[in-house]
Amino acid sequence: MRFFSDNAAAAHPRVIEAIAAANRLDTAYDGDAWSARLDGVFSDLFETQVRALWVTTGTAANCLALAALCPSYGAVLCHKDAHIENDEAGAPGFFTGGAKLMLLDGPGAKVAPEAVAQACDRVRKDVHQVQPAALSITNATEYGLAYRASEIAALGAVAKQRGLGFHMDGARLANALVTTGESLADTTWRAGLDALSFGFVKNGGLSAEALILFRTDLAEQIAIRRKRSGHLLSKGRFLAAQILAMLEDDLWLANARAANAAAQTLARAAPARLVYPVEANEIFLKVSADEAARLRGAGFDFYDWAPGEIRLVTSWDQNGEAVERLAAAIAAL
Amino acid sequence: MRFFSDNAAAAHPRVIEAIAAANRLDTAYDGDAWSARLDGVFSDLFETQVRALWVTTGTAANCLALAALCPSYGAVLCHKDAHIENDEAGAPGFFTGGAKLMLLDGPGAKVAPEAVAQACDRVRKDVHQVQPAALSITNATEYGLAYRASEIAALGAVAKQRGLGFHMDGARLANALVTTGESLADTTWRAGLDALSFGFVKNGGLSAEALILFRTDLAEQIAIRRKRSGHLLSKGRFLAAQILAMLEDDLWLANARAANAAAQTLARAAPARLVYPVEANEIFLKVSADEAARLRGAGFDFYDWAPGEIRLVTSWDQNGEAVERLAAAIAAL
Amino acid sequence: MRFFSDNAAAAHPRVIEAIAAANRLDTAYDGDAWSARLDGVFSDLFETQVRALWVTTGTAANCLALAALCPSYGAVLCHKDAHIENDEAGAPGFFTGGAKLMLLDGPGAKVAPEAVAQACDRVRKDVHQVQPAALSITNATEYGLAYRASEIAALGAVAKQRGLGFHMDGARLANALVTTGESLADTTWRAGLDALSFGFVKNGGLSAEALILFRTDLAEQIAIRRKRSGHLLSKGRFLAAQILAMLEDDLWLANARAANAAAQTLARAAPARLVYPVEANEIFLKVSADEAARLRGAGFDFYDWAPGEIRLVTSWDQNGEAVERLAAAIAAL
Amino acid sequence: MRFFSDNAAAAHPRVIEAIAAANRLDTAYDGDAWSARLDGVFSDLFETQVRALWVTTGTAANCLALAALCPSYGAVLCHKDAHIENDEAGAPGFFTGGAKLMLLDGPGAKVAPEAVAQACDRVRKDVHQVQPAALSITNATEYGLAYRASEIAALGAVAKQRGLGFHMDGARLANALVTTGESLADTTWRAGLDALSFGFVKNGGLSAEALILFRTDLAEQIAIRRKRSGHLLSKGRFLAAQILAMLEDDLWLANARAANAAAQTLARAAPARLVYPVEANEIFLKVSADEAARLRGAGFDFYDWAPGEIRLVTSWDQNGEAVERLAAAIAAL
Repeated sequence: MRFFSDNAAAAHPRVIEAIAAANRLDTAYDGDAWSARLDGVFSDLFETQVRALWVTTGTAANCLALAALCPSYGAVLCHKDAHIENDEAGAPGFFTGGAKLMLLDGPGAKVAPEAVAQACDRVRKDVHQVQPAALSITNATEYGLAYRASEIAALGAVAKQRGLGFHMDGARLANALVTTGESLADTTWRAGLDALSFGFVKNGGLSAEALILFRTDLAEQIAIRRKRSGHLLSKGRFLAAQILAMLEDDLWLANARAANAAAQTLARAAPARLVYPVEANEIFLKVSADEAARLRGAGFDFYDWAPGEIRLVTSWDQNGEAVERLAAAIAAL
Repeated sequence: MRFFSDNAAAAHPRVIEAIAAANRLDTAYDGDAWSARLDGVFSDLFETQVRALWVTTGTAANCLALAALCPSYGAVLCHKDAHIENDEAGAPGFFTGGAKLMLLDGPGAKVAPEAVAQACDRVRKDVHQVQPAALSITNATEYGLAYRASEIAALGAVAKQRGLGFHMDGARLANALVTTGESLADTTWRAGLDALSFGFVKNGGLSAEALILFRTDLAEQIAIRRKRSGHLLSKGRFLAAQILAMLEDDLWLANARAANAAAQTLARAAPARLVYPVEANEIFLKVSADEAARLRGAGFDFYDWAPGEIRLVTSWDQNGEAVERLAAAIAAL
Repeated sequence: MRFFSDNAAAAHPRVIEAIAAANRLDTAYDGDAWSARLDGVFSDLFETQVRALWVTTGTAANCLALAALCPSYGAVLCHKDAHIENDEAGAPGFFTGGAKLMLLDGPGAKVAPEAVAQACDRVRKDVHQVQPAALSITNATEYGLAYRASEIAALGAVAKQRGLGFHMDGARLANALVTTGESLADTTWRAGLDALSFGFVKNGGLSAEALILFRTDLAEQIAIRRKRSGHLLSKGRFLAAQILAMLEDDLWLANARAANAAAQTLARAAPARLVYPVEANEIFLKVSADEAARLRGAGFDFYDWAPGEIRLVTSWDQNGEAVERLAAAIAAL
Repeated sequence: MRFFSDNAAAAHPRVIEAIAAANRLDTAYDGDAWSARLDGVFSDLFETQVRALWVTTGTAANCLALAALCPSYGAVLCHKDAHIENDEAGAPGFFTGGAKLMLLDGPGAKVAPEAVAQACDRVRKDVHQVQPAALSITNATEYGLAYRASEIAALGAVAKQRGLGFHMDGARLANALVTTGESLADTTWRAGLDALSFGFVKNGGLSAEALILFRTDLAEQIAIRRKRSGHLLSKGRFLAAQILAMLEDDLWLANARAANAAAQTLARAAPARLVYPVEANEIFLKVSADEAARLRGAGFDFYDWAPGEIRLVTSWDQNGEAVERLAAAIAAL
């Protein structure tokens, strides 16, 4: 029974069906009928004019956005536990041409406006030090916390004041929104975001993420950078179709609700062990090595996050019985 | 009736079926059962030990290989009409960190050993001029010509003599092999190739290409570069499954045969108009603007390659009747 | 007797004196009194407000300018014989982060407006092809031809029309101006230039070139890029002092006049052998291998430019007697 | 009276004389008689075969070395207060093509072997995390501490064990050696160093630093990278001559002794205020804002390092009377 990560789960059947349904001749790259719909569909969803480009990975979405928001000689502010810092093999450095990640601290991998302001203040305004050019946050965070729209707006305000581009890695944005109940618009562009990596793969998609640009003027160079980095698939309709399937009838929200519900079941099993409140589909538990071994012995697979700490991740398709059994096993430790 | 490019055709139904069949939980990235089979399957196919990595585009395959074969301060020799020079948005420069493409001439986008030797000779051996580090050829060429194994071996010999890495962009390798009837082994590593971009997408695949490394020592850094460039999909099994489906029962060869046969039908319709012999699935015809307009008026879509010259491309699934009608229309011009 | 290149000549004694005179404590980097004068002195010289930054090499000046004028995903148009293409070890690719040099043809390494327009027209306006972003010319050209101000203005017009930044590599600008008799202003910004690499080292300087920015808004990022590329010397006053010495009493023009005069003496010795008119301090002569050997046997050193062609370069300090002897030797061939 | 930095001091008269003496025609770039002597002179000095390349800045020396020691997809371990992290405008990212600096902690900007080992241990050995490839230390450190040869050897051992290239930023190496009394050989290659940025500019030089390669196989690519980054001056003899002058009669050691002696005079004035022991020519003092203002009022200029902390730097040519007056002023606070 696998609670290792949501990025290995199956794709939702409707995504597979959408791929099959898209299997006919159309114009190559993003000249097809499916891709043509993305701008409109996402503009409706976000209640504002956006540009939407498909890519195959969150890393590509994140780093294409950062390359447009930060010059090669600038810095991106992010949390020290951010995915772009720890889990993308230095992709931000590659895509930007050598920009620096300037690391912020804060509990639960959450970035606070004060941390941003202080980091900017620490930099001398001269040519010897790399100047901050962009801010990137992850929502839900790497510890499964959801930003409230007001928190993001406060970050957006400091970003604007400091002249920083503002990007959100939303690999698990759906899970965060299900928790906050706030709108996509409030959580993104109304809070000052310039670009959003809107994740679908961890949430029932197969191989398509959406890069949403609230600063639509960035679309032209990002489309070039997408091609230049080998991310412009010739049969792009198969990516667009996946995304459209995820949006139809709010499948993306339904999937996130299912994953979050499973997470809550686990969280309730051992509230005292929780390292952080569970606000998405990740649960971090204080569990000794011995206890971890016992859970593994019982057939559960998960990630050893840190000494005395494990990470469980639930998926949109998490087997209900497995969740109940794991909850019971945790409670029984 | 579309003869614009093979990169927009439908995927073969067995590829779609393979995707559906792979839709269950497995380890993320390339830790799954499908990906695990690639090295073995391709090693059998090539009759030697290879490493095989999936990627989603030919551009990614080409440029990951070139980044491993050419330092940032080196040059890649290629034909002036090569895809990497003309149609990849400068991706080689991006992936290598600024390496130079050093352009060769030659009819039909074919590279001759003498051209390679002369290009090397023209470079002063000092720090002021960029030194050649790799050679990249396209097979079938951008004009649809197929290299014979002996031709590649002659290039491999000069590459070895000059200390050049040797890469093949095989976006239409299947089409070339169907024409030459030569073996994969003879056409690649026995001829001195270090790396091959083995194309499937133009030949009935959906979104998976294979990067084949005959120099298996390159695999480690290329795996890192794949991640770093955002090309390590989390649900990689869906790519591996496509490739396995294409290889099963030699589907890749059957598809190429179908496309090539359609091309021959068109070639026979107007032998005097052929710019080059038709050795793959691309037909370049001398056609006046007026004649091109007439063909378009009759419902045929194609690419205006150059003044007085059009390009037709046939696909694995080309409708036979459409091909016959186009052949007749060309003959009737 | 050396006619190999002007880049190895001695520095003018007044340059050495200026270095000695600058040898006292001042603020580091470019915060000193000498550096502070550059903007003003050059603004006077160019009859318009400019920003002027010292660097130590023409390669640095050229490539810092190009990095500011061309994005990593763009192309710089230049002549196929340009220094940036042939003699800078791929530095433009390094400084720009992988931009492409798009090569133009034309006699004498001169770029014609039509060549620029045609090169732009050849590029499809899509994401697959690298789009031209800048134009760079060399004046005097690599074959020692001087652009007239009107020729540059015609290039400036096409650059503006096509949205290209416009840069001049002026390693031998002084030599060109001495020939044309036209003003610095007419030859540069009035003709549409955005940035100029103003060479001093080949003309009697020691280690200081000036990067002149007519688009003063570029200065901030170029100052950062200068530091980032290791080109911000801590004792910058020694560079600024050299440049100021070269400008004082028009030493730069006097030096160029001396070098050009020596070149004319050589040109007059064998007008029928000239490959190009001599408009600066470089002489290209048709000379057989046998004749070249005889000249070398007589103690003259020079560059074998191409089969049957040699290059002679005169310097500001060329020994008059050596020039006369070489002229006689050439005439006697 | 300036105690701001040693990088703005005058050059030693013998350095100026050497420049004047080198002012005659010779082969360009590094083909001259002065440059030709560097390998031999430094090999003698280091008691082993080395390659020595001149460059104009410490940033260039550091980053050329790091580019050779660390691939674009690797990480350089260094102290969080290292010059390459804080004061080089992200040059390591530029020269390496996007490599990451992985920051270590430790008092006085000193790196301990345990910190290196722990940093390596924290990195998962997979393609998602950037793998350490090199270690860079500064000697004397940014807080003026001198590494003992044994300390460096311990770092060299862990570097070797972990497969890390090992580089020293020796901008103030002379000052450190004067304090430790240990040999150049023991402090560098015998301790496992692969490359050394040997600083002269802060120590009485004008514009020449030496990049010393103990791994002589790196010289070829670094020579190319030097050209490619615009750091190959055409009149290189003027740099080589400066370095030779600094080495002659151990001028570099004499200068460092003078600077260190001045620092000791200041250190003795207020031992209780010292943030760190004074082992080179930098003094960090606990001084309130009010006290700092009083020192400035008395005509002393220095750097506000941190709240309640100032930095004084002495130079080879520090005026003895000014030092005595500052010492008295500090003692009297």
